[in-house]
Amino acid sequence: MSARLIDGKAIAADIRADLREQVQRLPVQPGLATVLVGTRPDSVTYVNMKHRACAEVGVRSVRVELPESVSEAELVGRVRELNTDPQVHGILVQLPLPPHIDEERVLAQVSLEKDVDGFHPVNIGRLAMKNRDPLFVPCTPLGCIELLRHSGTAIAGRQAVVLGRSNIVGLPVALLLLRENATVTVCHSRTRDIAAVVRQADILVAAIGKPEYVQADWLRPGVTVIDVGINQKPDASSARGYRLVGDVDFDACRRVAGQITPVPGGTGPMTIAMLLRNTVRAAQRQVQNG
Amino acid sequence: MSARLIDGKAIAADIRADLREQVQRLPVQPGLATVLVGTRPDSVTYVNMKHRACAEVGVRSVRVELPESVSEAELVGRVRELNTDPQVHGILVQLPLPPHIDEERVLAQVSLEKDVDGFHPVNIGRLAMKNRDPLFVPCTPLGCIELLRHSGTAIAGRQAVVLGRSNIVGLPVALLLLRENATVTVCHSRTRDIAAVVRQADILVAAIGKPEYVQADWLRPGVTVIDVGINQKPDASSARGYRLVGDVDFDACRRVAGQITPVPGGTGPMTIAMLLRNTVRAAQRQVQNG
Ligand SMILES: NC(=O)c1ccc[n+]([C@@H]2O[C@H](COP(=O)([O-])OP(=O)(O)OC[C@H]3O[C@@H](n4cnc5c(N)ncnc54)[C@H](OP(=O)(O)O)[C@@H]3O)[C@@H](O)[C@H]2O)c1
Ligand SMILES: NC(=O)c1ccc[n+]([C@@H]2O[C@H](COP(=O)([O-])OP(=O)(O)OC[C@H]3O[C@@H](n4cnc5c(N)ncnc54)[C@H](OP(=O)(O)O)[C@@H]3O)[C@@H](O)[C@H]2O)c1
Repeated sequence: MSARLIDGKAIAADIRADLREQVQRLPVQPGLATVLVGTRPDSVTYVNMKHRACAEVGVRSVRVELPESVSEAELVGRVRELNTDPQVHGILVQLPLPPHIDEERVLAQVSLEKDVDGFHPVNIGRLAMKNRDPLFVPCTPLGCIELLRHSGTAIAGRQAVVLGRSNIVGLPVALLLLRENATVTVCHSRTRDIAAVVRQADILVAAIGKPEYVQADWLRPGVTVIDVGINQKPDASSARGYRLVGDVDFDACRRVAGQITPVPGGTGPMTIAMLLRNTVRAAQRQVQNG
Repeated sequence: MSARLIDGKAIAADIRADLREQVQRLPVQPGLATVLVGTRPDSVTYVNMKHRACAEVGVRSVRVELPESVSEAELVGRVRELNTDPQVHGILVQLPLPPHIDEERVLAQVSLEKDVDGFHPVNIGRLAMKNRDPLFVPCTPLGCIELLRHSGTAIAGRQAVVLGRSNIVGLPVALLLLRENATVTVCHSRTRDIAAVVRQADILVAAIGKPEYVQADWLRPGVTVIDVGINQKPDASSARGYRLVGDVDFDACRRVAGQITPVPGGTGPMTIAMLLRNTVRAAQRQVQNG
């Protein structure tokens, strides 16, 4: 038996096509501003991907690029300018920021209405609380839920295990699964006998950043696996000298799982689709509220 | 075999004695303001208990009492006055608020420095995030962790199961256990086969509000049980016509558990001790910061 693939690339393409239509029906062109501090190659790559995706669906995008040495005050000043810019509906501060800058203070400056990354402390606080609705939910976690939905995986009442508890993936994914009424377990580097915990899972979300870490014999047969990991694995046969693998040993695990996301082509494209969706919704909301 | 009792009453008394000394060494008298809207009997009881406890440790306490019909604007106005009152170091808005008032909007008005209940959305957001420190942590959840510490229960690397996901108990307790490096599972009314989940627990926190719901045969022998529930059970032999029981079937579970909190005398007194501690710390911090 082989797991059904959850094709994030195809699902994300459908979402983008739908967004393109929504954008055409809007009285304004939605705008996304990215703020990049420094020149970390991975951050540059991610920002470039986001701008390309914006262009594809008709979202205007503007780049703010600041030197690694920028002061927190100057960065905050730029964010505030974007807050008042009527052509900008969403603001994304690319993380991580350099160590001399207080990440939370900067993220807290993004206007709640433009916080399309969902990292404003108030949006995170609302995500953690019952009966409170964040204006935006972080994109990678939201993409995981969307993949579960598209794959027809029931969430309510099922056991979900999340590997990882980072601010940008693990913890918000766990909070979202809880909101969807899963029974949720969060594992991390201090978890003992992780295999036994994973074996309880009807739904497994792996977000630990360890190449092919999750083994096939940890899985309950039929489990739905969402692999968030994006890791480089040395590969002499590739021109770049490496290939991308997830946190799950895909070839072995697909023989046990019921459904599984590939890497690449799983959660990665969904993250960007969710960013676009958040940006379009931000524009829709700002149009409605005048 | 019978479980060792975790004596919340005695531990809370020790904490209060220690706080009394700290208060005497402070250059100002710490002050707590309670804000009570309406006359719900349970809320009135809780507020009265808090004032009595303040008096015992030498914390000045002031009461703001507002009619059930108070407008949100007026309530917010009173909170803002307390924010600027130099004799008030901690502000507690007794929950629940009447349905015509937006709880989050009111809690968000409490100055972060005086949010001794830890319910300001930014404090909750920080609690949910790695490397961010809330200025204050909600009192009942904090009391649970303190009981585990005093009982000598190791938390890191152990499996913790939390029953309940409310904003004031279940969810923040789960976030705190995660910060203490437990592997944490959150259960709720939609959890299937809760007995099987509970059986995994080295540490069980029950906060569901169902009298004597947790059964002895759900427990792994030796588990540490923190029973947060406070429920009335009809009892003809009592003058009040009822007695208080927890969410755990105490008499049966104490035969299986390694350690267990009684109800009353477990988490209840700890909640108030943590409120006093938060208030004294608020005063210490405000003195330091001028
Ligand atoms: N698909 C996407 O769009 C997308 C977006 C963002 C990230 N990612 C990828 O997702 C992965 C995770 O990213 P992140 O930012 O969340 O990483 P991170 O901040 O490094 O967090 C990793 C988490 O995994 C836990 N962990 C590490 N080793 C573990 C082990 N052996 N067993 C169990 N848990 C372990 C860590 O535990 P402690 O908390 O105890 O340290 C931590 O909570 C990376 O591969 C990243 O590239 C993908
Ligand atoms: N010791 C103290 O100082 C203190 C302080 C506060 C509260 N308490 C007591 O603690 C208890 C809980 O209070 P709360 O304010 O958190 O209550 P709450 O807001 O009513 O929340 C109860 C939680 O328990 C869950 N639940 C209900 N029935 C369940 C079942 N059969 N199985 C599993 N989960 C179930 C609910 O699930 P859903 O989310 O699916 O509805 C909800 O998450 C009450 O007895 C309260 O009096 C004590």
